[in-house]
Amino acid sequence: MSPMKLPSKVKLVDVGPRDGLQNEKQPVPAEVKIELVHRLQDAGLTEIEVTSFVSPKWVPQMADNAQVMAGIRRQGGVRYSVLTPNMKGFEAAVESRPDEVVVFGAASEAFSQRNINCSIQESIERFAPVVEAARAKNIYVRGAISTAVGCPYEGEVAPERVELVARLMKQIGVQHIGVADTIGVGTPRKVQAAMEAALRHYALDDVSGHFHDTYGQALANTLACLEMGIWQFDTSVAGLGGCPYAKGATGNVATEDVVYLLHGMGVDTGIDLDKLIDAGKYISDFLGRKPNSRAATAILTKRNNEACAVPS
Amino acid sequence: MSPMKLPSKVKLVDVGPRDGLQNEKQPVPAEVKIELVHRLQDAGLTEIEVTSFVSPKWVPQMADNAQVMAGIRRQGGVRYSVLTPNMKGFEAAVESRPDEVVVFGAASEAFSQRNINCSIQESIERFAPVVEAARAKNIYVRGAISTAVGCPYEGEVAPERVELVARLMKQIGVQHIGVADTIGVGTPRKVQAAMEAALRHYALDDVSGHFHDTYGQALANTLACLEMGIWQFDTSVAGLGGCPYAKGATGNVATEDVVYLLHGMGVDTGIDLDKLIDAGKYISDFLGRKPNSRAATAILTKRNNEACAVPS
Repeated sequence: MSPMKLPSKVKLVDVGPRDGLQNEKQPVPAEVKIELVHRLQDAGLTEIEVTSFVSPKWVPQMADNAQVMAGIRRQGGVRYSVLTPNMKGFEAAVESRPDEVVVFGAASEAFSQRNINCSIQESIERFAPVVEAARAKNIYVRGAISTAVGCPYEGEVAPERVELVARLMKQIGVQHIGVADTIGVGTPRKVQAAMEAALRHYALDDVSGHFHDTYGQALANTLACLEMGIWQFDTSVAGLGGCPYAKGATGNVATEDVVYLLHGMGVDTGIDLDKLIDAGKYISDFLGRKPNSRAATAILTKRNNEACAVPS
Repeated sequence: MSPMKLPSKVKLVDVGPRDGLQNEKQPVPAEVKIELVHRLQDAGLTEIEVTSFVSPKWVPQMADNAQVMAGIRRQGGVRYSVLTPNMKGFEAAVESRPDEVVVFGAASEAFSQRNINCSIQESIERFAPVVEAARAKNIYVRGAISTAVGCPYEGEVAPERVELVARLMKQIGVQHIGVADTIGVGTPRKVQAAMEAALRHYALDDVSGHFHDTYGQALANTLACLEMGIWQFDTSVAGLGGCPYAKGATGNVATEDVVYLLHGMGVDTGIDLDKLIDAGKYISDFLGRKPNSRAATAILTKRNNEACAVPS
């Protein structure tokens, strides 16, 4: 058998500060978020989803968006992205000079209705001016397609739905799309089918994967994408971010687990796993829990045992 | 892209009652073990690693081996296997009429020395009469190759070491070998290399994978094996079994997570996932903890939420 064909380099976007912390009930002060971003960039992350410019009524955890953006010591070669669901959010975001804005659409009609209170078509119409304004200002635009393989209301989502949203996003000028298994129900073949649907409208370099580990499938899904040549993924340090549809269950795949997978296969990420684990421990300690990452747990336990073995 | 080529059917061997419970400190009564075996076969498992015939001085948890084997209501089409590390164990095991006996060898010399107190070569010599006696009695012999990709003492283990142990096992008449990532450090390419080494001496139908989820890599490794055509895996219900080298870290991959992966890809296992989750909950409740399985956690949470949503 010839060895597995995989990309030689992978870029990870850490969405922990935004997608992760957004789901946290306890308030996280801006300085903690800023420190987390600093630790992530020190660990070698080259893109960080920092915050969201949405109404604080909807997402109080992100009310400090401008403060967080202003507090970051920006580093060359690192891209700072923010969520901008509408023109009002975009206008506020611009002041913060993001390198990239993210717009969200669902592949499931029911999810779109219940999550953002409009149809898929309407959500695209709402994003269109944001995309236009961003591109006029030379800000890169990423589109996220949520519930790309499964929906808490509709169940399985057909690849044709992803194909449709990808086409609509392409039409309004979105430059990159992320295919997201929001509730973590996907398995490799379904994820590959969703990816192929997206690839009908976007080049391989303009598509990324976003997996949740709710059912433990995120790394298998990542591997399935790598085998297709996909080389960009969203991940969340310490597995920050619960799954709103299954309390107690895991949310975003942990950056640590994905880095362990990639480095173990000789795939370069530019990330220092030890520093990344420290960043995850920093925010987990603040939140008063353990990192939701198996690799981090194993490595922290090993460190601990070694520390205990040192004669005092 | 053509769809992923995978086997259409997979056989899982649940090693929870033996490999899993062996690592438990609290005593588990024989009747609980028997009930667990019954629940596993009711869920559709066709092979169960029931117990170990080792000295109770070394593994007190398995001292009730004969009692457990005698208490099982055997079901047609189900294979009951037991560990027999030496002739003494084998002779005791024979009384219990196992369908299969399992012998263990390490791919790492240091692990062999420290775990079973002899060299790899010596361990093979010790197993040879067990294999001969078993085959004379028409009992199927499986050989497990532990530390096949990594060792807690030696670090990375070269595929050549696996090739050597596979060759030695073949020479003494072992019929099937399991390639085991005992400490869960493997990633897909390394696991594929270890598997290829084993396949130099054994046919595809006579090789299985045994993965630990310590670093979260077990499902990705399973997928990598499936892509090679390997269709037999050891798994452990509820993820029973810690990792003795990293306390607090996960051990055997949960059967539930693997079944979710396989069914999600349309691969048949003959297993009823809901019944399997009940079996895992049964033993986890007894042990006073939650199942160490992300799929089980997500599905149990969902069941719970649905139960709460029913008007009272």
